[in-house]
Amino acid sequence: MTENIETQKERATNWFTQLRDEICAAFEACEDDVTGPNGSSELAAGRFERSEWDRPEGGGGVMSVMRGRVFEKVGVNVSAVHGEFSEQFRAQIPGAEEDPRFWASGISLVAHPRSPKVPIAHMNTRMIVTTKGWFGGGGDLTPVFPIDADTTDFHGAFKSACDAFDPGYYDKFKKWCDEYFYLPHRGEARGVGGIFYDNLESGDWEKDFDFTQTVGSAFRDIYPEIIRRHMDEKWDEADRQAQLIKRGRYVEFNLIHDRGTKFGLMTGGNTEAILMSLPPLAAWP
Amino acid sequence: MTENIETQKERATNWFTQLRDEICAAFEACEDDVTGPNGSSELAAGRFERSEWDRPEGGGGVMSVMRGRVFEKVGVNVSAVHGEFSEQFRAQIPGAEEDPRFWASGISLVAHPRSPKVPIAHMNTRMIVTTKGWFGGGGDLTPVFPIDADTTDFHGAFKSACDAFDPGYYDKFKKWCDEYFYLPHRGEARGVGGIFYDNLESGDWEKDFDFTQTVGSAFRDIYPEIIRRHMDEKWDEADRQAQLIKRGRYVEFNLIHDRGTKFGLMTGGNTEAILMSLPPLAAWP
Repeated sequence: MTENIETQKERATNWFTQLRDEICAAFEACEDDVTGPNGSSELAAGRFERSEWDRPEGGGGVMSVMRGRVFEKVGVNVSAVHGEFSEQFRAQIPGAEEDPRFWASGISLVAHPRSPKVPIAHMNTRMIVTTKGWFGGGGDLTPVFPIDADTTDFHGAFKSACDAFDPGYYDKFKKWCDEYFYLPHRGEARGVGGIFYDNLESGDWEKDFDFTQTVGSAFRDIYPEIIRRHMDEKWDEADRQAQLIKRGRYVEFNLIHDRGTKFGLMTGGNTEAILMSLPPLAAWP
Repeated sequence: MTENIETQKERATNWFTQLRDEICAAFEACEDDVTGPNGSSELAAGRFERSEWDRPEGGGGVMSVMRGRVFEKVGVNVSAVHGEFSEQFRAQIPGAEEDPRFWASGISLVAHPRSPKVPIAHMNTRMIVTTKGWFGGGGDLTPVFPIDADTTDFHGAFKSACDAFDPGYYDKFKKWCDEYFYLPHRGEARGVGGIFYDNLESGDWEKDFDFTQTVGSAFRDIYPEIIRRHMDEKWDEADRQAQLIKRGRYVEFNLIHDRGTKFGLMTGGNTEAILMSLPPLAAWP
């Protein structure tokens, strides 16, 4: 918390919006460039459609959704909201017990590719302000058919981002991700991981903001690269069925375990924006 | 609680098993008799497949699953389990605070028809014993395209069952069902309702058991009748898409709100049996 907190809020919100624009442009470029079985003439290159929503208690957001030929459904949401935490949440939120008011801004993305050969991905970064202030976020990859090189490069991108700031970040945030994106009732991980961090408040806001930007940029660069490696590959109905089952697990995680989803639904968030993470089609055969 | 509690447990378990057999036979008869667009020669009449599972802490169950031409996926589970409630659950369960041991037996059914014109249905009845003992259960109907006559007859069957025991049951249990099967984040009901009751302990075990049997029999008779009204009707891709979206809402209810699902997953129940309620295919377009 500093004297220029309002400037910080504005800078963070502007960054999340800029990152949204950069990621959407990179995804639309994939839609243009695909030449494989899913880029054939029956489907047109997709484009994001935006819709704004207001939160009655204060603030709002913009949903950007694309239903294309590489991305069967991808949502990129930005929002900046403020209000007061209800009684039941105050004890769980740092700094909210003294004063329930909060401000939060962030970007949240889930991509469900059409091709079973292209991994599902999630990325989210946010800045939260109560009587305390912190950053959180991360990204994780959920391939239907894991490929070592993709896993290595996805983690490598986040490791580089982390190592530029603190030699301990990557191991800590990778472990956090592995623990968080785990389905205990299935005894399996959601995917091949990535990084996850929360309550990041090193005491140096500029450093923490810079780190959060670096994490977002790392995702913006590596995920489209992984998409391009596989988007022209052939796949068959058995691959598709495996993908629909993997997506079912994704639904299970998001609805049973994901704190952001639960939190959003229980605090009267925008249902359409929160559940944009759910896949266009999923199977429990 | 009486001296012959062991006999009561056995009688209840035998009834749940008999009801399972009767319902499975009624559903397989639908598979044989369908002549409409979904009963055409490319799909064979389905038959239930059974698999047993043991609960490491005590007891077990039998899953009966059918993937046929009327029923895209239907699961009918019976189980009789016993053990001790964990610390976190004791306060929530009548009679468990004094002594954490429990015994539970029941039947649970969710049917996902292939045709969007045939309603989804759920039915569950159970007997629970802690230091107290009670029955619970109910059934509800989730049509993609509600038809007044179906809703009237489904409710009528349960009303007749209720009225034979207590003039106040139907109104109370219908309201309980409406309140329970509601998705607050969507602001919509799961379907057209039915009845739901829990902690039924009138002081007359025979009467409560008789009521629970009558509820089960009412469902066994009315749901196949409603299926037969619609199973030969034509439907198109738009109907199918509406069905997949309705099924998505069903997933949301079961994973976010359903107490049985949450309770089962958190107490280390059989994941496959608990999540058999999830539809074979669902959409969030």
